[in-house]
Amino acid sequence: MGHAKRCRPSNSPKPSGRSLTMRLPPNVGQADFTAALKAFAQVVGEQWLYTSDEDLYLYRDSYSILWGEADERTASAAVAPDNADQVVELVKIANRYRIPIYPISTGKNLGYGGAAPALAGSVVFDLKRMNRIVEIDERHGYVVVEPGVSYFDLYHHIQEKGLKLWIDVPSPGWGSVLGNALDGGVGVTLSPYRNHFEAQCGVEVVLPNGRMMRSGMGAMPGAKTWQQFKPGFGPRIDGLFKQSNYGIVTKMGFWLMPAPDNFATGTVNVPKYRDLIPLVDIIGRLEQSKIVQGVWNLSSPTTGTPPFAAHEAGAAPKPVDPAIAAILSDPGGVDMNKLDVAAQSRGLAFWACDFNFYGPSKLIQAQWDCVCDALKVIPGATFTLGEIRSLPLSPEVQAKTRDLGPFGIPTLKTFDLGPMFSYDGEDVVGHIFFSPVIPRTGEAAIEAMNLFAAIGRKYKLPGPPLQFPSTIFERAFLFAVGLPVTRSASVNAKLRGIIRELVAVSAERGWGEYRTAPAFYDLIMGTYSYNDHALREFLETIKDAVDPNGIMSPGRYAIRSRYRKQPKS
Amino acid sequence: MGHAKRCRPSNSPKPSGRSLTMRLPPNVGQADFTAALKAFAQVVGEQWLYTSDEDLYLYRDSYSILWGEADERTASAAVAPDNADQVVELVKIANRYRIPIYPISTGKNLGYGGAAPALAGSVVFDLKRMNRIVEIDERHGYVVVEPGVSYFDLYHHIQEKGLKLWIDVPSPGWGSVLGNALDGGVGVTLSPYRNHFEAQCGVEVVLPNGRMMRSGMGAMPGAKTWQQFKPGFGPRIDGLFKQSNYGIVTKMGFWLMPAPDNFATGTVNVPKYRDLIPLVDIIGRLEQSKIVQGVWNLSSPTTGTPPFAAHEAGAAPKPVDPAIAAILSDPGGVDMNKLDVAAQSRGLAFWACDFNFYGPSKLIQAQWDCVCDALKVIPGATFTLGEIRSLPLSPEVQAKTRDLGPFGIPTLKTFDLGPMFSYDGEDVVGHIFFSPVIPRTGEAAIEAMNLFAAIGRKYKLPGPPLQFPSTIFERAFLFAVGLPVTRSASVNAKLRGIIRELVAVSAERGWGEYRTAPAFYDLIMGTYSYNDHALREFLETIKDAVDPNGIMSPGRYAIRSRYRKQPKS
Repeated sequence: MGHAKRCRPSNSPKPSGRSLTMRLPPNVGQADFTAALKAFAQVVGEQWLYTSDEDLYLYRDSYSILWGEADERTASAAVAPDNADQVVELVKIANRYRIPIYPISTGKNLGYGGAAPALAGSVVFDLKRMNRIVEIDERHGYVVVEPGVSYFDLYHHIQEKGLKLWIDVPSPGWGSVLGNALDGGVGVTLSPYRNHFEAQCGVEVVLPNGRMMRSGMGAMPGAKTWQQFKPGFGPRIDGLFKQSNYGIVTKMGFWLMPAPDNFATGTVNVPKYRDLIPLVDIIGRLEQSKIVQGVWNLSSPTTGTPPFAAHEAGAAPKPVDPAIAAILSDPGGVDMNKLDVAAQSRGLAFWACDFNFYGPSKLIQAQWDCVCDALKVIPGATFTLGEIRSLPLSPEVQAKTRDLGPFGIPTLKTFDLGPMFSYDGEDVVGHIFFSPVIPRTGEAAIEAMNLFAAIGRKYKLPGPPLQFPSTIFERAFLFAVGLPVTRSASVNAKLRGIIRELVAVSAERGWGEYRTAPAFYDLIMGTYSYNDHALREFLETIKDAVDPNGIMSPGRYAIRSRYRKQPKS
Repeated sequence: MGHAKRCRPSNSPKPSGRSLTMRLPPNVGQADFTAALKAFAQVVGEQWLYTSDEDLYLYRDSYSILWGEADERTASAAVAPDNADQVVELVKIANRYRIPIYPISTGKNLGYGGAAPALAGSVVFDLKRMNRIVEIDERHGYVVVEPGVSYFDLYHHIQEKGLKLWIDVPSPGWGSVLGNALDGGVGVTLSPYRNHFEAQCGVEVVLPNGRMMRSGMGAMPGAKTWQQFKPGFGPRIDGLFKQSNYGIVTKMGFWLMPAPDNFATGTVNVPKYRDLIPLVDIIGRLEQSKIVQGVWNLSSPTTGTPPFAAHEAGAAPKPVDPAIAAILSDPGGVDMNKLDVAAQSRGLAFWACDFNFYGPSKLIQAQWDCVCDALKVIPGATFTLGEIRSLPLSPEVQAKTRDLGPFGIPTLKTFDLGPMFSYDGEDVVGHIFFSPVIPRTGEAAIEAMNLFAAIGRKYKLPGPPLQFPSTIFERAFLFAVGLPVTRSASVNAKLRGIIRELVAVSAERGWGEYRTAPAFYDLIMGTYSYNDHALREFLETIKDAVDPNGIMSPGRYAIRSRYRKQPKS
């Protein structure tokens, strides 16, 4: 992996907007900052220290909803260490000069903050050079990676070695395996693998005081089960490093799925809108019983091809029937009863539900039979099992397959956006996610769809008239609503207001977000306020203890120590 | 649930040994202690404060390997609150007078410390009165319990309500659901449920400073997904409360398994000793692929009925053949080559492997077929699928079933010990576990079996000549070796020496313990010494921060704050 200058993505915009003049970290004097930068350079070499506007431009969040504003979180410098020992040295220097630092793995995470620090003026620690696949074990099914290993890197490594292992990939494949897990990312294969932080086993961390630590069984010198046994002895601390600022994770183990022999998708159609309620309950029981373990996706033959996918592509949904299109585009909102009646009179199923299956074909067939047996209690349900395809897919079939995520193959197809849409007269340059978690019931899904659709109409948001919940998590629905981001401060301010409204109406219903962009860390953490914010107080008590100088990612996920006085969003 | 005086188990021994005269907590004066006890009583009522020898006897660890010695960890008093608000008040009082406290759920946990505090002189907080099943949800498959809810309580509640839910039970059913999870307990049903702390979702905790906190989604007032979404927003802190002393967990959510329709056990026999190696590898791949998800158990038709079970029952194994019995009882150790040859010449399989299956019968049949397909590559393997039994079991069948654990039914059968054996001329009164985690390979299992057998012979330990690994954890083997405990200080001292030796030879090989009794907290934590004990330092940094007065369970799992000067074992 080369110099960062050579790493700018070819599709990134040219520098524009507010000039990034040399800025100091908060509460740091020029002399100290200069001395710290000099010391950083001595550890990593001059060529891995970045201070020019051009270099630092790469660490802006190109999807920032504060772009070009005074509150935009921009870096004062960046430094790229090659290994964990260098990270230790850099952290010690940061402590000496009280420099706020912000480690990133590869700096992707678009829609949730990108490479930009949570606190403006921080020095970004760009760990992309640390891109070693430390260990991969086919027998036990695990891998140990450094932060700079991307999904592409890991995938190609496995292919080159001919290992019978799969990885569970998030939507774009260029991100860091480790970084994605730390931010709470997800994929679409079997349930034990697709919640990436849950699939994690063992970390090596450089603590804010510069101490190197290993968690779990890895704390034993010469440990043989570091990546094999999650609980360890004593408290299980790995969770502390998710969505936080308690240390720099320099190695992480992940459990991998054996490459399956076959794949098939079975589709169940149910006719009515409110069939969603029994559908979700029955599927829940199948999943809790571990009969269904691949992802299942909701779509709607009535409203068009999957609205969520259509939304991701920035395109309007394509309803199959002009009368239905009229109902869907009613400026007063979609009347679900009308839609339901129209769908039934045309013999259209309201819901289609795709189940992914992996494994021996006789197991796939039996699982599908169990799905049919369980769901046939819904009147009018129809069932179609697609071809049981032998794996691995041939290159020809791969090339023709729209979505390779369920096959554990990383791509950048999510960026095949087609023409960007606009909002409020401004070009849309990216998106920012509003990601609430709601109960996994049809009733809650219907309530949330209606609520979010009404707000979408109120503010004329682009995207489909209905958002469907994601079924990735096992016992809760997730809505990942991508709101537009522009380069207009006034439009972005309006969009921030919409997000605040969405967060507020959700919190009123007891629905909390699972992840957010830095502009909303404080807003969201503020909704987790039980007993006068006891959780945040506990998190900050730990922060004060493990990071007494408050140097590490101050404000990340709203956790601060001495930087408490920094402005909150 | 009544007064503790009425709760003494009928089988507990009468008071004997060293008299428990009124003792003070370390570093606490008589006046402060008296004042604290008075204040405790004002919160809970006089009748729930215990200070007499007779009452405190109940909080001794009847399996203590320090029984009657100066180092035995006995309580100075005990107090039994009724609810979390009372816990808050009690913790505030403990802070005021700097009283070390030691919360227990129901106080079982035999073999790992029972009800006794980690630090002698602590006041036990006995939470057994807090035995409410706060919420149980059949639709989402979860339960929220207080610490005093036993497996029996929860099982009977589910039966009475007729809910289609199962619980995953540990060996004896009288323990606390919550307490068992916090100590790292396990059961024997489907893999997502049988590691009890992994099946946990959301906690309510009284922190050492008396603050009440809720984790995960529960930190949102009116949260709707507290027990449905594990990660929460920001760091996932639940793991901090496992095997630790950072707070008193007053409520905990658990994911429950839907009651399955059918159960079956399939048995695979493989002929040779070293067939264990491919057997373990192939099963590992089946489990990682989620084709096998019930527990599988190793036993040996050659050496007798399952040695592990035989060992638990305190009985010698029952080999089927006199020649094999002679090989097994060779004082120089079991020659595995001889045993292998003898077994094969008699047509005996060396290994039998039982797989448990749950669910629709067509799924069970398909899973079994997949097991057969995968394992038939081992020459001479034979396959037998037992009857697919419809569930629930009838009362008659239940009564005849030896082990109800796989059916999620709590029992006390593990205490049907028959005559106790003796060691070194002393009656054995209980056991203490040595519980190392080793890699899940046949090679490592063989190495560990030989190593532990040699030490068993060297010290003439009772039990089977071979220990087999437990297959409960998904990617690592566990050995849970129960060593005898006596009432003789000198014999117990010798046994402690044997445990130290076992720990040392294991650590040399990179095998660490996952759980231990208080007498060995420091010994075991000392083996997790990577980078000059960075992990323990981190754990104690957190301890100092969240428990500045060091009142909560000092020394539990070797984590201390101001009590660092307390003697270590």
